[in-house]
Amino acid sequence: MTATRPTAVNLSWAIRRMMRVVEEADTQLLDAELAAMLEAEAQRIAEEDRAMNVQISRHGATLFSTPVSILTHCNAGALATVAVGTALGVIGQAWRDGHVTGVYADETRPLLQGARLTSFELARQGIPVTLITDNMAAWVMKTGRVQAVIVGADRIARNGDVANKIGTYGLAVLAKVHNIPFYVAAPTSSFDFSLPDGTGIPIEERQHEEVFGFGGIRTAPSSINAFNPAFDVTPADLVTAIITESSILRPPYEVSIAGLITTKPEGELS
Amino acid sequence: MTATRPTAVNLSWAIRRMMRVVEEADTQLLDAELAAMLEAEAQRIAEEDRAMNVQISRHGATLFSTPVSILTHCNAGALATVAVGTALGVIGQAWRDGHVTGVYADETRPLLQGARLTSFELARQGIPVTLITDNMAAWVMKTGRVQAVIVGADRIARNGDVANKIGTYGLAVLAKVHNIPFYVAAPTSSFDFSLPDGTGIPIEERQHEEVFGFGGIRTAPSSINAFNPAFDVTPADLVTAIITESSILRPPYEVSIAGLITTKPEGELS
Repeated sequence: MTATRPTAVNLSWAIRRMMRVVEEADTQLLDAELAAMLEAEAQRIAEEDRAMNVQISRHGATLFSTPVSILTHCNAGALATVAVGTALGVIGQAWRDGHVTGVYADETRPLLQGARLTSFELARQGIPVTLITDNMAAWVMKTGRVQAVIVGADRIARNGDVANKIGTYGLAVLAKVHNIPFYVAAPTSSFDFSLPDGTGIPIEERQHEEVFGFGGIRTAPSSINAFNPAFDVTPADLVTAIITESSILRPPYEVSIAGLITTKPEGELS
Repeated sequence: MTATRPTAVNLSWAIRRMMRVVEEADTQLLDAELAAMLEAEAQRIAEEDRAMNVQISRHGATLFSTPVSILTHCNAGALATVAVGTALGVIGQAWRDGHVTGVYADETRPLLQGARLTSFELARQGIPVTLITDNMAAWVMKTGRVQAVIVGADRIARNGDVANKIGTYGLAVLAKVHNIPFYVAAPTSSFDFSLPDGTGIPIEERQHEEVFGFGGIRTAPSSINAFNPAFDVTPADLVTAIITESSILRPPYEVSIAGLITTKPEGELS
């Protein structure tokens, strides 16, 4: 019943909320009445999501007090989430606060969400965007072009391990080596409290064709193999802070994430 | 007179050898006679290059005594150099020795030399190739899929700093963090003894269009910027060994590289 992309826990969380409406409804209801209740619940989820992302943006923006250049990966913006987005919401708020000089966007192969979506969303807000190929991120850090990295998350384990778009783990390692803070922005619905750490997070493997070419053009020869994990897992010790709608979580994450469970109303978290 | 790609020192080295033929030639020579002398010199350079790469392959292959999976970046093979190539020559020899189980090839954006050239060359030799996007390399290392990294070099400074295709520096950092040896394979003509370290190596910046799209298809929106350095510089302390035609150089490189100058016949090195 909840067969969604395995890595993104908030999708199955939303479906469970919808299912609960069905389960708790009067069995004598007409289909149209049940449909109206489901639509109302979906609207509530969307509105809560919007409000959450605004709160994430506000919390995240407080991390910046002087103008910095920020690196981001994939798309954690309006086109992937709702309203202002998570990582891009933080960047947008920090930009309006005068604390962002510009953004480096990884193109994010194989599907190029950074080139197609992130750079579009940032440019539309008037934020200076510099697009790079993924393998340039290390040199961008080494040459002092960015002072922070912010990404989104598909699923976060109880210890703070973060599953996100492939390439995130490498960026986190590189940020650590270059003494650049590495922030994750995500709603609390992305936390999976059933997972003690990231080793239990399933990594979706996608079609090899995505790696063999782009946009229908094949660039690789035949008779070779490919590896195409859609996500990777970043160990908590590489994450400087996790920005949520309720607060900014800091290490030790076992403690700060456990704090979320006790402060959130029952039913909001799995 | 030697306006070649600025990073690749062996190109200007070859031109200087050709110029010397002209400078030292009898000024009474007919054009045809001079042309014949230049052609003979070019043939000598090509033959020396071929022999050098075979020697590099032989030396490099001695680094492997048990079967391993190797990661490579860009193309340091027959299509970029001569004969067997440098990094790919080493891989080919180690494969024939039974010490390679397979190769992970970074696609190497923006020009995809890994997807287009390296995977082709390796597959042609029957070596199992797995193509990945550049941002997957860290996860490939983290999940234990490779036990060594080998790349080529465009220019090497006197202290062992290595300029090579963009993305090399990041791979070297990641290899270090994952305790994976990082090898550079290059002929001694790639050493620039005039440079005390890598800070003096010019980094060619290429057209933004290469980053904005893929195979002629524009994927990025307009009104954004791009950064497109063709090369980066890997500090010597991330390099496990440099494989040359004369020997395998180990740290401290100031000593081992200086040894090259005293052992090579005058005129072979700049």
